[in-house]
Amino acid sequence: MRFSSRGQVDPFIVMDVVETARAAEAAGRDIVHMEVGQPSTPAPAAARAKLIAALARDAMGYTVALGRPELRAGVAEYYRRVYGVDLDPRRVVITSGSSGAFLLAFSALFDAGDKVALGEPGYPSYRQILRAMSVEPVGIQTRPENRYQPLPEEIPEGVKGLMLASPGNPSSTMLGRDELAALIAAAQARGIAVISDEIYHGLDYGKRAVTALEVSDDVYVINSFSKYFSMTGWRIGWMVVPEAHLRTVERLAQNMFICPPHASQIAALGALEAIDELEANRAVYAKNRTLMLETLPRIGFDKIAPPDGAFYVYADVSDLTGDSRELAREILEEAGVAVTPGLDFDPIRGAQTLRFSYAQSTERIEEGLRRLQAFMAARGH
Amino acid sequence: MRFSSRGQVDPFIVMDVVETARAAEAAGRDIVHMEVGQPSTPAPAAARAKLIAALARDAMGYTVALGRPELRAGVAEYYRRVYGVDLDPRRVVITSGSSGAFLLAFSALFDAGDKVALGEPGYPSYRQILRAMSVEPVGIQTRPENRYQPLPEEIPEGVKGLMLASPGNPSSTMLGRDELAALIAAAQARGIAVISDEIYHGLDYGKRAVTALEVSDDVYVINSFSKYFSMTGWRIGWMVVPEAHLRTVERLAQNMFICPPHASQIAALGALEAIDELEANRAVYAKNRTLMLETLPRIGFDKIAPPDGAFYVYADVSDLTGDSRELAREILEEAGVAVTPGLDFDPIRGAQTLRFSYAQSTERIEEGLRRLQAFMAARGH
Repeated sequence: MRFSSRGQVDPFIVMDVVETARAAEAAGRDIVHMEVGQPSTPAPAAARAKLIAALARDAMGYTVALGRPELRAGVAEYYRRVYGVDLDPRRVVITSGSSGAFLLAFSALFDAGDKVALGEPGYPSYRQILRAMSVEPVGIQTRPENRYQPLPEEIPEGVKGLMLASPGNPSSTMLGRDELAALIAAAQARGIAVISDEIYHGLDYGKRAVTALEVSDDVYVINSFSKYFSMTGWRIGWMVVPEAHLRTVERLAQNMFICPPHASQIAALGALEAIDELEANRAVYAKNRTLMLETLPRIGFDKIAPPDGAFYVYADVSDLTGDSRELAREILEEAGVAVTPGLDFDPIRGAQTLRFSYAQSTERIEEGLRRLQAFMAARGH
Repeated sequence: MRFSSRGQVDPFIVMDVVETARAAEAAGRDIVHMEVGQPSTPAPAAARAKLIAALARDAMGYTVALGRPELRAGVAEYYRRVYGVDLDPRRVVITSGSSGAFLLAFSALFDAGDKVALGEPGYPSYRQILRAMSVEPVGIQTRPENRYQPLPEEIPEGVKGLMLASPGNPSSTMLGRDELAALIAAAQARGIAVISDEIYHGLDYGKRAVTALEVSDDVYVINSFSKYFSMTGWRIGWMVVPEAHLRTVERLAQNMFICPPHASQIAALGALEAIDELEANRAVYAKNRTLMLETLPRIGFDKIAPPDGAFYVYADVSDLTGDSRELAREILEEAGVAVTPGLDFDPIRGAQTLRFSYAQSTERIEEGLRRLQAFMAARGH
């Protein structure tokens, strides 16, 4: 059997790091994981308790395609509480993680051959999923002086869609309300569909992240229980769509997914009630972030994007290397710290960047920073 | 925002039935559900117990994209035990239900504009997912005298792929080893990729269902924990791919899904050990099937496909109606039995067919058959 052309998506460069780290651990070595894109904490206790109770009582067959009504209502209520946004629960589509939401959004909005703009550096799967759907990603090389976020005038000609991400991955930078409004207005004036990836919302450390729904109802907003709610493996997220798009998205969801995982929907309901536990997790990230921001510049990683949210620090290491993959390999081998080379996020400048994640316990982050300091000191920093 | 063309997939006709049945129940009426495509039983006790144990112990973050190694090994072992097939666990890809497997298979194998053949009547989402991916489904109008399965000489010109389903939905008919081998050989001789949907395997009542892997390694085989393992809502399935396709499918899975739901993977491991409970479920279906086959022809539904497996009876009702949707509405309203009009499965002949599901308790099936008998008697049958 032959492959399709569109199935030939790029490999993840970080997988080499992950595999080398796994092998080192299997050989008995201690590795600090600053490459991971997920919390080390489990789903909140209330989420697990709710699922355990349901397992004894409920057959948990298919739900309706858009998700259990009480979960859609819970998400809408969350928007009221956090953002002061009045959101009709009917517009909330429960999805199989943000991954499922991307597949639905791209199917509903773009045809084969369409072009979609996205900021670079950015989450690599935007590009790869678009390609797998025969849609052409068009990178915007965002600038450090613009906090690695696109400007309205940088939206390329001829695109049908614009992906935004705030906080961004890997940059962790956020778009303020005015910047977000300007980007959305510029896109809408040109008939360009806007998809706002807000998966790191909740993980901010100062200013609150602004949702695109505060600016416009005519956008797709994608979020998830993965990061703030600490439920990556559960594959449960949501998407808010314009009312006029509901029927289309529902039919696509019925056919492409049948429904999001039922057990995860129940656990997610519990997670919405677990704000105290989640805020305690966030306090750990806030402490880790302070440690990272104090230490990294001091030891030689001084060109970093201002990390407003999420749990990453994105560093320009162009004065250390022209080959971030090799540098990551050396850091892993010599210092026992796994970090992510920037190539997955930015095919052009990523050979000179690294992403450090601090989504671990503070103790492990301190240990990782000690090792990084020794590594850099040995190189004369 | 404008919609894409490909997002405009057909609505499910059965949803009218589902919604009318729901409203009737909300108004206090008792409805027998012969429209459903899922077991009424929960996941096996061993599956639930395994998950509950893991919830106390494991953070359950992302797994690797192809699924937990012990689950892949468990599925491979299942093939050895059930079919006597020696299968390398590396070829087993754990997926987010068979839905996730279709998305992966179609992405790996077909480009925009390609044509894929599939038997009609058949599972409607094949067509709709293909369309959402800009791939053109080409229906083969299978014949009752061929048990609603395609013949090798019926594979249309110019297709890149052939979807097979044994047992089929809605027909419930199976392809024997020789028929399956002839179809696969004919496709392979013409360079046509074969995808074998085996989601109803395990639910057979006499002859054992034959997997395409008994015939060839150069096929995609899709199966799931939904039906025999009674885990529809868990969205967990698998796909066996040729060794040469593993890297491609892995990269697509990393980007499109990250991983299948972790909790469902753990429950599925438990389900593989729950064969006694699953065989007890199957014994109920076998009894229900006998009741259906004794009763339906006697009361006027006498043109039925021989239901080798699954839990459906597909009836040609052309001597009763030219509008199966209206007939289903009348059966629901007058008899309180929800059944599925054939239009979702066969856009051409489905106006003259109905699908009856017997995936409920025997008591409910007996009640449904009594009501159907009264309905037909009132019409002079």
